[in-house]
Amino acid sequence: MLIRTAAQPLAEQLAARLTERIQSGLLASGARLPSVRQCAQQQGVSPSTVVAAYDQLQAQGLVEVQRNRGFYIRNRALDLASKALTATESEVAGTAGATRVPVSAAALIRGMFQGGSGLPQPGLGAFPPDWLETTFLTASVRRVTSGRLLQAMSLQYGEPAGDLGLRQALAARLHTLAIAATASQIITTVGATHALDIVSRTLLRAGDYVMVEEPGWAIEFARLDALGMRILPVPRGADGPNLAVMARYCELHAPKLFVSISVLHNPTGTMLSPASAHRLLQLAQQHQFHIVEDDTYSHLAPEHATRLSALDGLQRTIYVSGFSKILAPGWRIGFLAAPPDLFERLLDTKLLATLTTPALLEKALASCIEQGQLRRHALQIRSRLSQARSRSVKLALAAGCTFAAPPAGLFGWVDTGVDTDLLAQRMLDVGYLLAPGSLFHATRAPSTLMRINFCTTQEATFWHVFASMRQQG
Amino acid sequence: MLIRTAAQPLAEQLAARLTERIQSGLLASGARLPSVRQCAQQQGVSPSTVVAAYDQLQAQGLVEVQRNRGFYIRNRALDLASKALTATESEVAGTAGATRVPVSAAALIRGMFQGGSGLPQPGLGAFPPDWLETTFLTASVRRVTSGRLLQAMSLQYGEPAGDLGLRQALAARLHTLAIAATASQIITTVGATHALDIVSRTLLRAGDYVMVEEPGWAIEFARLDALGMRILPVPRGADGPNLAVMARYCELHAPKLFVSISVLHNPTGTMLSPASAHRLLQLAQQHQFHIVEDDTYSHLAPEHATRLSALDGLQRTIYVSGFSKILAPGWRIGFLAAPPDLFERLLDTKLLATLTTPALLEKALASCIEQGQLRRHALQIRSRLSQARSRSVKLALAAGCTFAAPPAGLFGWVDTGVDTDLLAQRMLDVGYLLAPGSLFHATRAPSTLMRINFCTTQEATFWHVFASMRQQG
Repeated sequence: MLIRTAAQPLAEQLAARLTERIQSGLLASGARLPSVRQCAQQQGVSPSTVVAAYDQLQAQGLVEVQRNRGFYIRNRALDLASKALTATESEVAGTAGATRVPVSAAALIRGMFQGGSGLPQPGLGAFPPDWLETTFLTASVRRVTSGRLLQAMSLQYGEPAGDLGLRQALAARLHTLAIAATASQIITTVGATHALDIVSRTLLRAGDYVMVEEPGWAIEFARLDALGMRILPVPRGADGPNLAVMARYCELHAPKLFVSISVLHNPTGTMLSPASAHRLLQLAQQHQFHIVEDDTYSHLAPEHATRLSALDGLQRTIYVSGFSKILAPGWRIGFLAAPPDLFERLLDTKLLATLTTPALLEKALASCIEQGQLRRHALQIRSRLSQARSRSVKLALAAGCTFAAPPAGLFGWVDTGVDTDLLAQRMLDVGYLLAPGSLFHATRAPSTLMRINFCTTQEATFWHVFASMRQQG
Repeated sequence: MLIRTAAQPLAEQLAARLTERIQSGLLASGARLPSVRQCAQQQGVSPSTVVAAYDQLQAQGLVEVQRNRGFYIRNRALDLASKALTATESEVAGTAGATRVPVSAAALIRGMFQGGSGLPQPGLGAFPPDWLETTFLTASVRRVTSGRLLQAMSLQYGEPAGDLGLRQALAARLHTLAIAATASQIITTVGATHALDIVSRTLLRAGDYVMVEEPGWAIEFARLDALGMRILPVPRGADGPNLAVMARYCELHAPKLFVSISVLHNPTGTMLSPASAHRLLQLAQQHQFHIVEDDTYSHLAPEHATRLSALDGLQRTIYVSGFSKILAPGWRIGFLAAPPDLFERLLDTKLLATLTTPALLEKALASCIEQGQLRRHALQIRSRLSQARSRSVKLALAAGCTFAAPPAGLFGWVDTGVDTDLLAQRMLDVGYLLAPGSLFHATRAPSTLMRINFCTTQEATFWHVFASMRQQG
């Protein structure tokens, strides 16, 4: 909201806000600014204020006027952020010509983990902060920051594999999921992202083939790409990955690793069936590849959900999970549980990447788990999420969308019928960050799908704006 | 110390301790256990207790008897930890035959960051915890864990580049080192290790050439090796890297990066001279390589020390530092300051590796810096270190060692006149962890040098044991 103050004229405030969005890449090169009238309406200022702001941007060389078409963001020499994240993005942009200017993937992803404009963000990749508020979090930190314990955990690097107390609590938690792992098989990490990174760096070398579910999570594709791996996208179906495609890949390319989300798959929300799990493990055995099972959404799923790590007994499967989606994203705590014969190598990779991880927060988390607070909290979150999901699904259907997979978990995988890259660009102009389908494809192919967060799409306001923007596409 | 209790017989306690050391790799395959008499003396138990313990180890298949020679650790199928850390280690072991069994590099490095046996550890890579004790640490954590701030920083992922308050405090700190960087050039990381990892992953691809100072820090060699880079070792002299060697490398291999510790180089303690710095930057300009300047020991150095980042104005140089060596290793906070044109790419690599870093501890650190507490603490540490260094140097010289470089900073680079890999093995048997010279060489070549920590080598007891062990070599 722009506020009328003596210190800074409104036009300057507006220009500053737009400059920030251009520089962060959220307004991508080539994107059109809203018309003067639209912008004046959105921001609640007079058209002359908008004209003054746009003039400032033009003077700074950030935007240019195209005759009879409006104000456009000037092309910057190189959108480095996008390039680093997806090698294929420029190709996509290239083939589609000047009309196709996707939002920077890096900026979008960053946006998905930040507060944003104050509006509920449909593309958000996590729970909104107010959903995660608890009283026990503060208490757990108080416990571990009292006197000597704080000094002890601050003044030493800590155990390479992570705080022993936490690893024991995690082993007990895995036991409830029917996964047999001892504390000595567990390594704590900087969120599940870091665990996935450690696994790929340990098991793969540049040029190796790796199978990844598609649609899948953009950061996974981008990381493997940055490490020089060759990605083999495996179509994800309602009951798991397409095993026929995987078998074919195995014959052709001898991939070393398969990256999979068994439970509440991101973005589709689908669950691996027991039969698929069994056959998948047989395939892994036959072709000698490892599997990394990303169980990031573990706390949102029914406890009887099928996990590869449970069937496999952590022989070929490395289990990865974390606490950013349920408790405290800011603590950055994840972990992996590994087959004994891989443990030392994985631990060495952690050591090379970060040495150890902060024991203080690990100890606080252990106390939340041990006292049963996390379990009760997760139950509450699931119940609240279930209500939000019902509301969101109704509104999405009413807005003319369909669901490409049965709604479950935190995310919906929604078909809008229009190109969601273009839609995302337009919605950004009015303050909404979407997660377009292209973000979930290895080659960032254009898509009519998008991922919605059920927590942030349960109000009619968003869907009204969405429906009107969609009409334009 | 073994303690006589009813619960566990002494022999069993001793066997358990040795088992742990064998399994952790601190007693490497092929190493000889101390004689029964030696061990009985060291542990303060009767020879029959030792015999019983050794029998247990033999029954478990962990050691074997070699006629008339004593008890040896059995060769395990594969020392995975060592393999992962240094590709060349097996070659070294191979060429020298069965008599040459270095301690596992991974285990040694882990040992360098842990408490250990209770004895002061000469190979320790950091300050002993009691050196870092302060009152302000607890107070700073209290400040940031009070109520709303704790929730706010826990429930969101935080800013991709790191807590803004900390980045501003770091920019101010860099200003005192004559390095001009704004908060918008700074990225916080999980210790300096993570910062170095981010830089290598961003600027290099597998197969690329990279120049690294030698002697240098084992983790840097091991990480670059694990990433598939080709390491070009640059001899480090008294006033900096050997520029003639670098120039030759540039002509032959067009390396993309040079990794350097300008100030209080690890392990030699030498400082880059202004003239070397100037010529080095000219070379980098001429051959278009980047430099990552690792300033891990920043707080132990005089403020006027020459830093490449200051001369260069962060054009081709990326500055890396952290707080593990001065304040709180367990908080795992490091950072990098980058040229503006590399910033986005480096930030994307952080995002792919860990998403964000924990804001809570970053905020606490910011408060320690802003209030001047860290600066005063560093002054005290330097003064205490200076006294420890004097004592240690005298004892080392008296024990027949010489210094390969003038003693400075935290570490001494000591010539023992004997093979320090073998010496390290023997000293481990009596509870002392050394840092043998081979750890600091890209190929782990055998060496008569070792790195000592001045804090943990200021007592005569260690040097007496050292001198007697050295006699045997």
